[in-house]
Amino acid sequence: MPPRYLSFRCSVPWLLLLLQALFLIRSFFAFRRAADTYTPATLYPVFQDVNHMMIFGFGFFLMVLRRYGFSSTGFNFLLIVLGVQCSVLVEDLFTESFFFPCCSLAKAVVSMTAVVISTGAVLGKANPVQLIVMSLVELIIFSVSRCINKAFLQVPEHLTLMHVHLFGAYFGLAVTSRFPEPPPGLDKSRSTPKSDLFSMLGTVFVWVFWPSFNSILADSKKEAVLNTYLALAVSAVAAFILSALTSKDGKFRMTHIHSAVLAGGVTVSYTAPSIQHPWIAMILGLLGTVITILGSHCLQRCCNPALKLQDTSGVHFTFGLPAVLGAVAAVVLGVVEEGIDKQWNDLSSLGYLVFVDVGAFCQTISTALITGLITGLILNIKLLKAVHVSKYFDDQFYWEVSSKIMSD
Amino acid sequence: MPPRYLSFRCSVPWLLLLLQALFLIRSFFAFRRAADTYTPATLYPVFQDVNHMMIFGFGFFLMVLRRYGFSSTGFNFLLIVLGVQCSVLVEDLFTESFFFPCCSLAKAVVSMTAVVISTGAVLGKANPVQLIVMSLVELIIFSVSRCINKAFLQVPEHLTLMHVHLFGAYFGLAVTSRFPEPPPGLDKSRSTPKSDLFSMLGTVFVWVFWPSFNSILADSKKEAVLNTYLALAVSAVAAFILSALTSKDGKFRMTHIHSAVLAGGVTVSYTAPSIQHPWIAMILGLLGTVITILGSHCLQRCCNPALKLQDTSGVHFTFGLPAVLGAVAAVVLGVVEEGIDKQWNDLSSLGYLVFVDVGAFCQTISTALITGLITGLILNIKLLKAVHVSKYFDDQFYWEVSSKIMSD
Amino acid sequence: MPPRYLSFRCSVPWLLLLLQALFLIRSFFAFRRAADTYTPATLYPVFQDVNHMMIFGFGFFLMVLRRYGFSSTGFNFLLIVLGVQCSVLVEDLFTESFFFPCCSLAKAVVSMTAVVISTGAVLGKANPVQLIVMSLVELIIFSVSRCINKAFLQVPEHLTLMHVHLFGAYFGLAVTSRFPEPPPGLDKSRSTPKSDLFSMLGTVFVWVFWPSFNSILADSKKEAVLNTYLALAVSAVAAFILSALTSKDGKFRMTHIHSAVLAGGVTVSYTAPSIQHPWIAMILGLLGTVITILGSHCLQRCCNPALKLQDTSGVHFTFGLPAVLGAVAAVVLGVVEEGIDKQWNDLSSLGYLVFVDVGAFCQTISTALITGLITGLILNIKLLKAVHVSKYFDDQFYWEVSSKIMSD
Repeated sequence: MPPRYLSFRCSVPWLLLLLQALFLIRSFFAFRRAADTYTPATLYPVFQDVNHMMIFGFGFFLMVLRRYGFSSTGFNFLLIVLGVQCSVLVEDLFTESFFFPCCSLAKAVVSMTAVVISTGAVLGKANPVQLIVMSLVELIIFSVSRCINKAFLQVPEHLTLMHVHLFGAYFGLAVTSRFPEPPPGLDKSRSTPKSDLFSMLGTVFVWVFWPSFNSILADSKKEAVLNTYLALAVSAVAAFILSALTSKDGKFRMTHIHSAVLAGGVTVSYTAPSIQHPWIAMILGLLGTVITILGSHCLQRCCNPALKLQDTSGVHFTFGLPAVLGAVAAVVLGVVEEGIDKQWNDLSSLGYLVFVDVGAFCQTISTALITGLITGLILNIKLLKAVHVSKYFDDQFYWEVSSKIMSD
Repeated sequence: MPPRYLSFRCSVPWLLLLLQALFLIRSFFAFRRAADTYTPATLYPVFQDVNHMMIFGFGFFLMVLRRYGFSSTGFNFLLIVLGVQCSVLVEDLFTESFFFPCCSLAKAVVSMTAVVISTGAVLGKANPVQLIVMSLVELIIFSVSRCINKAFLQVPEHLTLMHVHLFGAYFGLAVTSRFPEPPPGLDKSRSTPKSDLFSMLGTVFVWVFWPSFNSILADSKKEAVLNTYLALAVSAVAAFILSALTSKDGKFRMTHIHSAVLAGGVTVSYTAPSIQHPWIAMILGLLGTVITILGSHCLQRCCNPALKLQDTSGVHFTFGLPAVLGAVAAVVLGVVEEGIDKQWNDLSSLGYLVFVDVGAFCQTISTALITGLITGLILNIKLLKAVHVSKYFDDQFYWEVSSKIMSD
Repeated sequence: MPPRYLSFRCSVPWLLLLLQALFLIRSFFAFRRAADTYTPATLYPVFQDVNHMMIFGFGFFLMVLRRYGFSSTGFNFLLIVLGVQCSVLVEDLFTESFFFPCCSLAKAVVSMTAVVISTGAVLGKANPVQLIVMSLVELIIFSVSRCINKAFLQVPEHLTLMHVHLFGAYFGLAVTSRFPEPPPGLDKSRSTPKSDLFSMLGTVFVWVFWPSFNSILADSKKEAVLNTYLALAVSAVAAFILSALTSKDGKFRMTHIHSAVLAGGVTVSYTAPSIQHPWIAMILGLLGTVITILGSHCLQRCCNPALKLQDTSGVHFTFGLPAVLGAVAAVVLGVVEEGIDKQWNDLSSLGYLVFVDVGAFCQTISTALITGLITGLILNIKLLKAVHVSKYFDDQFYWEVSSKIMSD
């Protein structure tokens, strides 16, 4: 083992220690009392759902690589517990309040979705130091981007958080484009039936808890839950339809199911609390899945090879494309509703509405792409000792694994 | 691969597409607004429990076959998301309301238990087309059967839903009796320790969430939860007792544990909200397990071979027999309570009570058996291209599975 | 197979039957009506969390041995359903109430943690008869110890329950010290990547639900949840730090992660509802992990071999040491807070506070050790037919397992 790998590994705990010390010092000065902190009693079960979905659901959802099970679940766990602390304190920094703001923990956990999604894009390619740096940078930039949306474009608080899928997916893609490509036909980047089954386990968890995720910060929780549930249901049916239609000889493909059943939830994430007619949510769920599965075919065949992009767990089509669709749908629905309300008279106010929504969308996606590219470049400087491509997708490089390999 | 299999596979997505289009059109006309729809805030956590139990719990509960893991979880998921939509819309059709009725989603998810149980009976033998047709037919018939119980026998709403185990089990048995028997000693119909472990994972999930299931629509939720919990606890202890007593040299058998720990929950499903003394629930839990384990021995040795019945995951003794016991117990308890109340004077009203309860029970079971038989016959006509027995119990027939088989 | 093993096995069901009959008879006389029993509606989701954490979480958490998966989950399940019944009835005996006391089920489930932790210490070495006897004895003694704390030392109800980790760990250690040591280098006592992964699944479950556990009986639930969450988060980060620092060549070790991520939750279990400044909880979480990982090194290298102690799943450092730290922290924090309140004038009342807390702590730990030793001696008399060391850690001894061994 060359010494540079050794020295990389030895830097992980010190980096973590430094960060944890910073958080502790910050928390000492930041919140004076826990008394006025937490949340109404009815929020707690929903918060638990979202927390569970993040740590358990996404941890196993990401377990698609045959030799990368420990890292998928373990690093996901590490990044979330680190990120939630960071996020609570960053939030605190921006809001200038010396009390622990209500719902702040819930917002922190929701923000972590961006990091989890980006992690999916560089899964198996980034070492822990890179992952930690990436997640902290991403959290801070996402916070800044939300502040811009909130301050300059008057986007409501809970909608700024729903840009989390969009931001996470494009930030992750921009970062992963700066990583060297693995050699084609690397056996370790495949899944096995066993890893697929664990991933199914995680997917089902995420699916079940998605209505809680979409409703946790919304005002009209009832509508958010109902619309999300229906969108997810239609999405899952459409995933089976399209998986059978697009695969050779009509068989289902597990990876399609994994990525496409969630598309409905991502698509309605902006609009779930405000859709008045369930059939609109159902249509959005259907379109989300269509774009996901067609996207997965187009991207994997044409776009990714051309851009030399390797998106390990397919976050572009799983989260990126449905989020774009959802943002477009939010603009259209908002305009139509406002238009009907005002009988299409006040066109300038409609124009302003479109300008704000499209502005927030463009700001988020361009911030994600630009800062993602910069982060990707920083992560691959020599100091951070990027992993050699031959060591990609392998637990044994980070974990003490007994001789027999887990997925065989 | 003969072309008829290919053509069968190609019909799955079109069938799904047709159904999904129907649901969308129906939903466009059906519910005008989502506003007055959903449910009190305290119902949401319980609804999530039941939803989780259906999709995650039963998905892994059914994973008893060594080569059928993808299909068990995947098809269970597909049938539920399809069935919930169908059930919401069918419900809507019967109640003639143009608003999304409160609790309607919760009722739809509970109704799906019937389909999940029936799926267990034909597990590994029916192809997706057959499963989809079966589940839609079953949902509609179950809805009709509930309407009859409600309209003619004045059974309260939430009790009609609790016939779901009875209906599901006997419908499933009737359907499976029309499928050709697999050759004896087929290796693929066995479980492995690994599939047993996943199945244990699902069973524990279902067990934990069962009190939520029994209490979700009940009036007196506290009693329902408490009685169900105690019945389940006694049931689980009794499962270990009887498993050791009935097996060779006193070892426990995992399949006994799987099926029998749930018997208590099924047995008290009718009576959980109304039992006043916890010891009655405990006794019912004990009797439920006794009937399940003895039933599993009698049925598997004598009855099933004689009737040429192959009940893959043993739904007859897991859900059918305890549900029968529960129905009988409900009659007896109802009569005793009423009798004590009225000091056994008003025998005619007691008689009426017995008549109503027994009537509802007989109506449900006979509807299930007769329509199940007819459905089984329809499913095996040539049009639906039943699977050849040599292809039973195999993921590879429906899923793109990489070369190494999952459960080895 | 020698006949004594056979006869041991045959005694399991009869013992269970006897106990279940006793519980039934007791329940017949004990609670008259279920009406005034259960708990406010908001408690139910939290109760479900704790219940889930016990049965599912700990069941899979204990799955660290490669050939002991069925027994880990199965016996954990059996002991909990048996213990909850026993605990409800014992509680009832002490409180002399003829009504099912409110929250009694929740308390019973929390008490079971002691048994689950002790089971971890003797995992794979005790046969079911020994486990059942141990868990019942432990529950009764823990109840007595709580009564002493409550009656003589005026410890509040919910704090007496939080001694559950302390009691469970030291009782388990004392019991396991009386079991014959397995031969060194026994292959079956190792974990495989697959069993580690299932264990990770359980660990994550327990981690997610720990805030519910710490807050279920507390008065100020908001603070308890927040402090526990932050302590757990810091604890998890520290676990990764110390795992990399203490292992050869800077790799992470899964067993460290399993045991240390929970340390924070155990450490703050006494103080979570009363800590006013979140940074204190975070520091406690950090210290908890430090003591766990350093403890695991010291104990496994020096202490355990010297004392001829084999603590299969490391409950001493996972639960014992953090609980000791938590108890010390509770005394210190209580004194400091009281001291600041009264400006350090009333030293005698401070002394009394210290006396009470230290007294409760010493009483609990010494009761656990002494009664544990006695229980261990009783369990190894010839009557209970202890398992021969060659049969340790093996599912096949208790379960009908098909020919292929599960974890290979």
